[in-house]
Amino acid sequence: MVGGAAGIGHVHRRGALMDDLATMVCGCFSSNWDRNLVRANEWHITDESRVYKDYKEMAEKEGARADKIDFVCIVTPNDSHYEIAKAFLEQDIHIVCDKPLTYTLEQGEELARIAKERNLLFAVTYTYTGYAMIRQIRELVDRGELGELLYINAEYPQDWLLVGLFSDKSEQAMWRLDPAKSGPSLCTADIGTHLEGLIKMTTGLDPVRVLAKFDTYPRDLPLETNTTILAEYPGGLTATLWASQFAIGRECDIAIRIYGSKGSVEWEQQSAGVLKFTKLNQPTQILSAAREYLYPEARRLSRLPSGHPEGVFEAFGNIYRSFCEHLIARKTGTTPESFTYPTVEDGVVGMKFIKACVESNANNNQWVAL
Amino acid sequence: MVGGAAGIGHVHRRGALMDDLATMVCGCFSSNWDRNLVRANEWHITDESRVYKDYKEMAEKEGARADKIDFVCIVTPNDSHYEIAKAFLEQDIHIVCDKPLTYTLEQGEELARIAKERNLLFAVTYTYTGYAMIRQIRELVDRGELGELLYINAEYPQDWLLVGLFSDKSEQAMWRLDPAKSGPSLCTADIGTHLEGLIKMTTGLDPVRVLAKFDTYPRDLPLETNTTILAEYPGGLTATLWASQFAIGRECDIAIRIYGSKGSVEWEQQSAGVLKFTKLNQPTQILSAAREYLYPEARRLSRLPSGHPEGVFEAFGNIYRSFCEHLIARKTGTTPESFTYPTVEDGVVGMKFIKACVESNANNNQWVAL
Amino acid sequence: MVGGAAGIGHVHRRGALMDDLATMVCGCFSSNWDRNLVRANEWHITDESRVYKDYKEMAEKEGARADKIDFVCIVTPNDSHYEIAKAFLEQDIHIVCDKPLTYTLEQGEELARIAKERNLLFAVTYTYTGYAMIRQIRELVDRGELGELLYINAEYPQDWLLVGLFSDKSEQAMWRLDPAKSGPSLCTADIGTHLEGLIKMTTGLDPVRVLAKFDTYPRDLPLETNTTILAEYPGGLTATLWASQFAIGRECDIAIRIYGSKGSVEWEQQSAGVLKFTKLNQPTQILSAAREYLYPEARRLSRLPSGHPEGVFEAFGNIYRSFCEHLIARKTGTTPESFTYPTVEDGVVGMKFIKACVESNANNNQWVAL
Amino acid sequence: MVGGAAGIGHVHRRGALMDDLATMVCGCFSSNWDRNLVRANEWHITDESRVYKDYKEMAEKEGARADKIDFVCIVTPNDSHYEIAKAFLEQDIHIVCDKPLTYTLEQGEELARIAKERNLLFAVTYTYTGYAMIRQIRELVDRGELGELLYINAEYPQDWLLVGLFSDKSEQAMWRLDPAKSGPSLCTADIGTHLEGLIKMTTGLDPVRVLAKFDTYPRDLPLETNTTILAEYPGGLTATLWASQFAIGRECDIAIRIYGSKGSVEWEQQSAGVLKFTKLNQPTQILSAAREYLYPEARRLSRLPSGHPEGVFEAFGNIYRSFCEHLIARKTGTTPESFTYPTVEDGVVGMKFIKACVESNANNNQWVAL
Repeated sequence: MVGGAAGIGHVHRRGALMDDLATMVCGCFSSNWDRNLVRANEWHITDESRVYKDYKEMAEKEGARADKIDFVCIVTPNDSHYEIAKAFLEQDIHIVCDKPLTYTLEQGEELARIAKERNLLFAVTYTYTGYAMIRQIRELVDRGELGELLYINAEYPQDWLLVGLFSDKSEQAMWRLDPAKSGPSLCTADIGTHLEGLIKMTTGLDPVRVLAKFDTYPRDLPLETNTTILAEYPGGLTATLWASQFAIGRECDIAIRIYGSKGSVEWEQQSAGVLKFTKLNQPTQILSAAREYLYPEARRLSRLPSGHPEGVFEAFGNIYRSFCEHLIARKTGTTPESFTYPTVEDGVVGMKFIKACVESNANNNQWVAL
Repeated sequence: MVGGAAGIGHVHRRGALMDDLATMVCGCFSSNWDRNLVRANEWHITDESRVYKDYKEMAEKEGARADKIDFVCIVTPNDSHYEIAKAFLEQDIHIVCDKPLTYTLEQGEELARIAKERNLLFAVTYTYTGYAMIRQIRELVDRGELGELLYINAEYPQDWLLVGLFSDKSEQAMWRLDPAKSGPSLCTADIGTHLEGLIKMTTGLDPVRVLAKFDTYPRDLPLETNTTILAEYPGGLTATLWASQFAIGRECDIAIRIYGSKGSVEWEQQSAGVLKFTKLNQPTQILSAAREYLYPEARRLSRLPSGHPEGVFEAFGNIYRSFCEHLIARKTGTTPESFTYPTVEDGVVGMKFIKACVESNANNNQWVAL
Repeated sequence: MVGGAAGIGHVHRRGALMDDLATMVCGCFSSNWDRNLVRANEWHITDESRVYKDYKEMAEKEGARADKIDFVCIVTPNDSHYEIAKAFLEQDIHIVCDKPLTYTLEQGEELARIAKERNLLFAVTYTYTGYAMIRQIRELVDRGELGELLYINAEYPQDWLLVGLFSDKSEQAMWRLDPAKSGPSLCTADIGTHLEGLIKMTTGLDPVRVLAKFDTYPRDLPLETNTTILAEYPGGLTATLWASQFAIGRECDIAIRIYGSKGSVEWEQQSAGVLKFTKLNQPTQILSAAREYLYPEARRLSRLPSGHPEGVFEAFGNIYRSFCEHLIARKTGTTPESFTYPTVEDGVVGMKFIKACVESNANNNQWVAL
Repeated sequence: MVGGAAGIGHVHRRGALMDDLATMVCGCFSSNWDRNLVRANEWHITDESRVYKDYKEMAEKEGARADKIDFVCIVTPNDSHYEIAKAFLEQDIHIVCDKPLTYTLEQGEELARIAKERNLLFAVTYTYTGYAMIRQIRELVDRGELGELLYINAEYPQDWLLVGLFSDKSEQAMWRLDPAKSGPSLCTADIGTHLEGLIKMTTGLDPVRVLAKFDTYPRDLPLETNTTILAEYPGGLTATLWASQFAIGRECDIAIRIYGSKGSVEWEQQSAGVLKFTKLNQPTQILSAAREYLYPEARRLSRLPSGHPEGVFEAFGNIYRSFCEHLIARKTGTTPESFTYPTVEDGVVGMKFIKACVESNANNNQWVAL
């Protein structure tokens, strides 16, 4: 792992180790050497020679080992993803990288190109795509249970930034408000992108054109804290995406609703283990995780019998699990079980999406083609 | 009442009579004389001379009576509202009219002008504005409990048109699909307008500019069956409005969420008697109808102790009740209790809104100023 | 109507008139003559000679008229139901009476006997039995969709008495605390009986033995304000019933859940228009009122298209509607549509139930056979 | 760990390791040596000499080591808990044991006695007591926010046994149906005991007397699959507990509602991260995990910012975390942060509770004092 002394690193670690498909053997957890060591110790890195000063050293030395790592997790701020990922790709090490993929679209495209050339796996951890019921939606869509897709309504309201600014003054809130670190977008890049990612994972579709309207509160912040996006997808599918960091009373309430000509689905993270599925003129059905009646692709993503709530850690775990299964199948030459996880190509679409939204907003909220 | 032999007339009647502030003494319920008589009999119109052949006769004859009616309810299809309302206004009879107000904006503006000149009351029955908790929201907004208003998300998904077309072939679905009757918009005019009306009732604000995207399914229908609207309100308030008639599994699920700098509210018709209210950094509160802690303006709109569900009939009743209280206060020269109901001016804004949405959609989904 | 100047009378009136199957032509609304007249005027009793001083006069004079009333609604406190109902039965006038039926079991049994002898209809208004979805449950049970019935969990928590005592000192709370008016039970007779009534309406079954535990808060009240009842029904069906008047935060939250060997149903008043129905090993289905897929017996009890909330008034209306349909069929010699409403026999079972609970509680919470 | 090759072992392991307060260094995972080795390998037990043939060998050999384990997790079927726990206690090794504590009450009392004599820590993993919001309830109770406790309603409906029997014929369902393994109770001992444990954890109270009614379906099973328990607690507090394994459509839906004279709380596992809290005559508040306004004792039990769902794994983790903090404080002589977890004494109360329920049921559902 590169990064992880603070922030979301511990979630990645738990996700990666959860199913005992991977172990953590080395890392560079902080640019502060003391913090780096403390973390390495906490996380049981027993071989101190594999705690590295910086990512360059880590990529080089690991790349040179006979027993080099299979993959690296990159959990640093966005602006450093590009150079770190590139260094490891060049050592033929597979990648799991936090979202959004990079700081600029061009960086993302270059990473995708390198990964493709070198035939390396590259996952981008759009957290919420890992839930079992998201996979169930994908199967429903692919098998035609929803018919022709007509409309998508996706949202991700939070209030943490407002709470953070007024109550906490938390460090984490702060770095995100700096355009030099976050890039030209805050809310769209930070959480709006999850909505685009969720639509991609559930439908397989990329947006054709978008129109975005950014709002900011407190009014004098340099970046948007609320974003509204209209998007057109192929085949006359319209989507509205709303993400907010000032929606008082809301907490990571990511949700997606997809309406088709034959049926619809509705899912929200706060009831992550259930999925509402309605066929035309029939009662709404409440599908529940781990139940026999689910498609096997979704059912296998639960670790406990139905009724036992699983949460964000397990969603992360499912992304890592699918990635590891893919990697193991690759290494062993076996046919893997079905897996799906967001790839570097998905990450590139995400970058295009963010860029187009920024452009639309800057251009008086006009439509922008992708 | 004019109209009412079919459709929503019976809801108006029950709303009007609910609180014993009005009685129904005459009417013209159908252009079919037999139906007209049947209805008059069912509804206990004992004086047969006050069952009228058409609205013209009714306006003239009632206008000439010493004991003429105080007000008339107009519940006919949209395209006839204008001429009927005008006929009664000219007899100095107050009006309660179903929404949307008229077929064209100009008609609505003329009605508003006449009502103003003659100093007549004119209510437009945006059904959902009658709920007690909607009034509670207005009080919270007016008293500054939400702070500066930042964002509104309103929606009204239904599936009845799709269900109707495929299963019922119901007559009611059919007349709405005819542009000659419905005007140039179906979903926006029929239910999208309720969202604009709800925003008006809860905030007092009119939209400054809108952008609309219409979708249609079945694809070959002449009018839209799904509408997405971005709207800008004064003071940097953004709103998204979504209404649908093809959202499988959804049933009149009108909902509004308003986020301010100090607090937020969330309300949905399917839990009409409760209101979620959250102050920054505090637990969400579930306010419940009829409870002592509500503002008196909202509390008085319940007819039963808290916990007894009231529904659409009572929401209608509250509009009629406020209208009648206003009328009684006018007639008796007393100071009325607080009342709020949507007026002809609100109806005119609604017409402007529909017109601008139609224009935006026709013009490749560009912004249109109101 | 006898009674109705205060309290629940207006709900009965609206329920009775809702579907235009009945009109209110006479009454004795209060023992206070002025109040009586005020009410009669408010309720449009135009013939003042049919506003009566007391129930005796009303029974006699109406009984002597050629155009006497078809039925009378009795909405006075429990202790007077018996003598009033008896007076009208003896004039061959049908009865609708508020619950619980009488003050003592013997009174109830006598009323049932008289009604049977004279072949008169007698409805007891267990409010919540009127909801469309309660009828849907009955059909599911009767058609075997739930299989063998195994377990019922019914509850009715409120907090109004506690709120009333500490905040309101409301008159209504007060008369119920007087054993001379309420009888030997408060919570069990007032709201616990609704649970028994709901089980009867949904399953058709009467309890075989019960065990009750009464709790009281404030501790020094003479009657119980919380009741817990274990009940055994025929065929090895166990039920738990809990009703409370001190459950802070709860408001008329009556709910019933029935588990069978093949399926289960769950219903709660706060979402009165939907019913959860689950078949073994299948997703839970959310049935919604007025939808085509409902049994016709339930579907016809909605007055609006699906998605339009109906509430307590409409539940009352359904009891009156079924009663009136029965009466009209009787008078016209026609075959009525399916109707179901709680009868005087159901009311007698309710009285037995209350009596057995009081006995069980007094006898150190031992089992009592019915 | 002793046991764990099948069943719930992996949940214990993840719970134990989650916060990096413990590592797993040895185990005896199965009586089948091959399975034992496979599991040891999967779980990264690198020192093969610490994979033991049976618990006796493990207790003896570990007890003899200078670097012996601090504590052992016992996750075998109930009937073996006693002898295993005893063996480790006698080596002065602390214990974490799955519930219910033992097969007989006497066994449990002996374990409690030994643990006390040797001053050893002994946790019993009543899973659901680990949720952050359960700890919040305890603080609300202890700080008097609910006033005098009046009534508790706790339930745990599942359908897995019925689903299992008819669809799965799963092995796990099967061993529980054998009285020789499960003891004289199935549903009460397996899940009813969780309700008693939850009441203990939230109020600190032990039941004074109980009355139980067992139901069984399929009718010919030797043990109950549904249990209803009335319980009296000190100070006039009544509780009803219902647990079921045949409640179709329900899945581990454990819930507790506590009503006091000043306020109430309601919690259910399917929304584990929120708690409903209502003060007399005030709106219900929805408290959310990890929020600043929580008591610090509850707030610290979340691992992620508010809005990120945590589930059963994290609830387990909180029990282990509290246990480990206690153990570390003991070893380092420091003052620990606040911790609460169910102890062997709680486990003994649980055994008394089960025994009394069995006795009550066998004795025609009469009251039994504890």
